[in-house]
Amino acid sequence: MSLTRPVRVAVLPGDAGGVGPEMAVRLLADPAARASAAVLLIADPVVLAAGQRQAGVALPLVPLERPDAPLAAGQIGWWRHDTLGGIEPPLGEATEASGRCAMQSLELACQAVQQGAADAIVFAPFNKHALRLGGLAQEDELRWLQDRLGVRDFVCEFNITGSLWTSRVTSHVPLRDVAALINPGAIGDAVRIIDAALRRAGVAAPRIAVSGLNPHAGDGGSIGREEIEIIEPAVQALRRDGLDARGPFSPDTVFIAARRGDFDAVVSMYHDQGQIAMKLMGFERGVTLHGGLPVPVATPASGSAYDIAGRGLARIDGLRAAWDLAVRMAGTSR
Amino acid sequence: MSLTRPVRVAVLPGDAGGVGPEMAVRLLADPAARASAAVLLIADPVVLAAGQRQAGVALPLVPLERPDAPLAAGQIGWWRHDTLGGIEPPLGEATEASGRCAMQSLELACQAVQQGAADAIVFAPFNKHALRLGGLAQEDELRWLQDRLGVRDFVCEFNITGSLWTSRVTSHVPLRDVAALINPGAIGDAVRIIDAALRRAGVAAPRIAVSGLNPHAGDGGSIGREEIEIIEPAVQALRRDGLDARGPFSPDTVFIAARRGDFDAVVSMYHDQGQIAMKLMGFERGVTLHGGLPVPVATPASGSAYDIAGRGLARIDGLRAAWDLAVRMAGTSR
Repeated sequence: MSLTRPVRVAVLPGDAGGVGPEMAVRLLADPAARASAAVLLIADPVVLAAGQRQAGVALPLVPLERPDAPLAAGQIGWWRHDTLGGIEPPLGEATEASGRCAMQSLELACQAVQQGAADAIVFAPFNKHALRLGGLAQEDELRWLQDRLGVRDFVCEFNITGSLWTSRVTSHVPLRDVAALINPGAIGDAVRIIDAALRRAGVAAPRIAVSGLNPHAGDGGSIGREEIEIIEPAVQALRRDGLDARGPFSPDTVFIAARRGDFDAVVSMYHDQGQIAMKLMGFERGVTLHGGLPVPVATPASGSAYDIAGRGLARIDGLRAAWDLAVRMAGTSR
Repeated sequence: MSLTRPVRVAVLPGDAGGVGPEMAVRLLADPAARASAAVLLIADPVVLAAGQRQAGVALPLVPLERPDAPLAAGQIGWWRHDTLGGIEPPLGEATEASGRCAMQSLELACQAVQQGAADAIVFAPFNKHALRLGGLAQEDELRWLQDRLGVRDFVCEFNITGSLWTSRVTSHVPLRDVAALINPGAIGDAVRIIDAALRRAGVAAPRIAVSGLNPHAGDGGSIGREEIEIIEPAVQALRRDGLDARGPFSPDTVFIAARRGDFDAVVSMYHDQGQIAMKLMGFERGVTLHGGLPVPVATPASGSAYDIAGRGLARIDGLRAAWDLAVRMAGTSR
């Protein structure tokens, strides 16, 4: 990568049956938004046409023969792939065709990253069911990207709303299995990866709150001993390594402190501990960041929204925040 | 109880070292607030004097020789007890004296209930540590009231903010034990008791959402099977009995639907599932209602707040809401 060329962000229009194409076109149509980077738009012509029609906008596109062709900041280079064969998939439905088209856009984004032609990936909402129909065998697109890019280290999904970041020690596991999965290594991984990502996003000394597992963080051991035996020692070990990790805090108040600005991130022990809080705090307008990959990969927290697809109702706040974050992180890490 | 006399509410000033006495005096000093019922104020003269001094108000008190002496709506009858021996406990501290004084006020409130002299109990914040020092052997004052009043049926703490009520199937237990405690009987108890309390509070046909246990409510059984095997059948059984119970819903979105007004209550499966949401939604200004006792017992959700005791900073929104709820419930149940 040359330091003189602008940051390049691969932008994918998401699931063809949902609100993604319209959102991507509306984001890119704003010269002020895209001025901060060069856009490598990876799209099937059918999806791109649908998005422009739905948004009522024609984008100023620069057709590219290859992904690493030169682009100035604010320019939209279109790297075309013909996966749909000219047939527009139905709106509001998960189809094999739309899933295959989405998977192909992810594949090309990885090729661009590996060729040094993209410093970050931003995608409008995919639909998980369509991705499965289109060939996704992994748990989600994060695991697919991990496999495709040959990443062996810990990867993790971050949820971000405003300036508050969260990660979690366990994710899509039954609640009855959570306690057995809490150990110092897993806590350390979750704290270290969010610390690194926050630094990459420009936070010089991330203040990271670690949640307890039990009500009132165990209340001195009377409601569970994981805080005393596992979490507190893990936090102390991280502090000895120079991280500003603190806790464990009571799960039902740590997000109030974080919302007020006491912390840059909260590391929760299980899915709903973080998600109940983040969704109530407006995370539907937030960003999901895939952490631990060679480049930042960001997407809005909201989904493909089949119920409002094609109707011009989708908000782009989350996609814009994903774009801003990806550009910022790509800029600091080059 | 005569139907011609006004509703009578026993009011206790709470922990003498905290913000309770000041809050109680400020509530009762408002003629509009107390107009809806007769007040049976159960207080030690030292605590009452401190509260009036801190609030800068002298209450118009009617000294009572016995708790069932006649009172008109808006009148404050003072049923005195001398537990502190004229010595004011220090502010901002849990002491044996303040705890003993608080326990004595609870004992007298129970006597008043049993003599038909109180239709409800409202107390300003106690301090759990002081109550323990003062003789509380049970888990909390709810269990003490249950024992003292000889209640054998299920009792339950409800948390209420605005018009949204919550109860939970499990409470102060370690997270690793939660899943094993989820069974149809426990779910049925939690739903039935909140349904009955809501009806008593004037909600004709309570709409009750039942939360799932696992992320995404198990996602069709792929992240835990309790929803399919336990919760869904329990909800169906309640519906067959005529209750408007629904669910199980995904734990991380059910409170968003409830906040928007889709439900009157959410029954959660474990402590933090409900408390993370309620605290973020401003439950610190809400009400805790002890359900399953012979009369409604309500208190603000906020605590004794030793850090601001005596400084005139305590808000009384929660205490006022507790008063309003207790008066309403006592009025409909006579």
